[in-house]
Amino acid sequence: MKKDFSAPTMKDVAREAGVALGTVSKVVNGLPVGDSYRIRVEAAIRKLNYQVNSYAQGLKANRTYTVALLIPNTIDPFYASLTYYINVALMKKRYRMLLCATDYDPRQEQEYVMMAQQNKVDGIIGLTYNPHLIVDENTPFVAIDRSMGPKIPCVACDNFAGGQIAAEKLADLGCKHAAFLRSGSALSNEPNKRKAGFEAGCLSRGLSYEMKILNDGDPIEEFEHFISEHIQDGKLSFDGIFCVTDRLAYHVLHILHRFQIRVPEDVQLIGFDGIRTFGSMDYHCSTIVQPVPDMAEMCVDLLLRENTMAKPPLVCLPVTYAYGGTTLEEDIHADR
Amino acid sequence: MKKDFSAPTMKDVAREAGVALGTVSKVVNGLPVGDSYRIRVEAAIRKLNYQVNSYAQGLKANRTYTVALLIPNTIDPFYASLTYYINVALMKKRYRMLLCATDYDPRQEQEYVMMAQQNKVDGIIGLTYNPHLIVDENTPFVAIDRSMGPKIPCVACDNFAGGQIAAEKLADLGCKHAAFLRSGSALSNEPNKRKAGFEAGCLSRGLSYEMKILNDGDPIEEFEHFISEHIQDGKLSFDGIFCVTDRLAYHVLHILHRFQIRVPEDVQLIGFDGIRTFGSMDYHCSTIVQPVPDMAEMCVDLLLRENTMAKPPLVCLPVTYAYGGTTLEEDIHADR
Repeated sequence: MKKDFSAPTMKDVAREAGVALGTVSKVVNGLPVGDSYRIRVEAAIRKLNYQVNSYAQGLKANRTYTVALLIPNTIDPFYASLTYYINVALMKKRYRMLLCATDYDPRQEQEYVMMAQQNKVDGIIGLTYNPHLIVDENTPFVAIDRSMGPKIPCVACDNFAGGQIAAEKLADLGCKHAAFLRSGSALSNEPNKRKAGFEAGCLSRGLSYEMKILNDGDPIEEFEHFISEHIQDGKLSFDGIFCVTDRLAYHVLHILHRFQIRVPEDVQLIGFDGIRTFGSMDYHCSTIVQPVPDMAEMCVDLLLRENTMAKPPLVCLPVTYAYGGTTLEEDIHADR
Repeated sequence: MKKDFSAPTMKDVAREAGVALGTVSKVVNGLPVGDSYRIRVEAAIRKLNYQVNSYAQGLKANRTYTVALLIPNTIDPFYASLTYYINVALMKKRYRMLLCATDYDPRQEQEYVMMAQQNKVDGIIGLTYNPHLIVDENTPFVAIDRSMGPKIPCVACDNFAGGQIAAEKLADLGCKHAAFLRSGSALSNEPNKRKAGFEAGCLSRGLSYEMKILNDGDPIEEFEHFISEHIQDGKLSFDGIFCVTDRLAYHVLHILHRFQIRVPEDVQLIGFDGIRTFGSMDYHCSTIVQPVPDMAEMCVDLLLRENTMAKPPLVCLPVTYAYGGTTLEEDIHADR
């Protein structure tokens, strides 16, 4: 018996909802779109009983159902957490994951890119700070934290907003003069926007600040020197510190302890990443939390999405502030 | 030009060294063998210029050069570290690694075992507490921390020795009465030997002890209750605690802090695993360190080893004690 109807397509949904095809696709793929559009598209999807066929989406016809993850290691808790959530997101879609702990080795990284070009893996999700990595624009690749070209989507948390939230939080918790401490790669990357966000946040709240930016060398000693230079008669000249990572905040906590500066009474401290002890217990410090599970899902969704669709060059996912004992508690400032 | 010699074989090495073929193979594969044997074999290898052909070793003829790692997750720092070092060890041998974060899901685990049986992967390294996992004895499999059958090699640290070292260390640092706290799987596994080792260590040093062993439920509250029951007039009735993991030690530190019991002045505390903050910084407590890089190398070596060789059913690798601030420092007891 021949059916007198065929399954509804994305075009049918667009017609029914009275929106552009791209809008439907954004909703289907979970990308940001205005609420009124989303509601109309979702209603049309329900009315037509449109089925998103995720297995028909994306990648090459001759599939291996295998994706490679390039990541420096799984020792660092942020990388370890990303690895776990990307693994889970891939398995949910019935994809297997090859893990490649690169230790920043450009040879290893390039080898996996070659594998993708030879169709031995369907695509790559990569967190790489290697500026020499050559990725063909036809190789399915999703980058984390560093943009690798206009046709390669990059997924990151909203690092700018994170810096801004940190500055505003310090101001709201009563800080008058703040410091920003940064070490890390000088290579252009998304986490470097934490600095600009912090500056914008200080500006918006009228909070004065100074910065210590390091890229290489023996940074902990230099931060110790910087802090010691700002102590007079046992008092620190700033009352708020934003550290570019929780790891640096951990070092700074030890330095402040050695100088007998109390946290949060004398100086409040905010880190970045949302690292927890033993992977799942307490925060090491008050911190800006990266939405790692959402970032992982987004990487997988973008990699497996239909080729024909324009992929966004940069997706920034929202961060949140979490109290972790190194700032004053919120309820003291209930007027906020 | 036809060469009038062929490449030396393992048999030639055995003949030259005057030892059994199995001894040569042990040396080549890095298994324990008496020093005098090792020296003779190594000399013969040098004399004959014998080349270990690792690519000719082990596994099936129709190779994928892919190994699956089954591990609960990469969030827990011990699992994360094992994953990293196994990945590195496999890549050194030009093998790729499929990561399968199982979340203890028996269906996922069984699926990867099926893949191995269908030759889609060459073998499996698995840390699984699933008693229902069925592994065919012909499936190349190396288990971590739990024996899965006489023909499946199991790699673990020397958990018994670790417990023993902890007890002896507490005694040597002046403890008179100790406690052992344990939570975890009731399933028979290698880490459960920490308890027997601790008891043996206490016995050998004449250290009295008591135990609190929990398998399920809400253990932290129960440990808190156990400790509170042993406080009289603000004084704890034991002066040394051995916790089965660093994670439990971390909880116990917080409990002791709440009861205003000082560590290490009032009670010394030793954990197990050797977890460091941020994966590479400070130990959370004084601890028995698992040799994770060696365990990873051993798993890979055993998996890729020649089929014809008997594989040892259990390999236990040596642990070490590390000072991490929750015991008295060694130099106070220099007489040891």
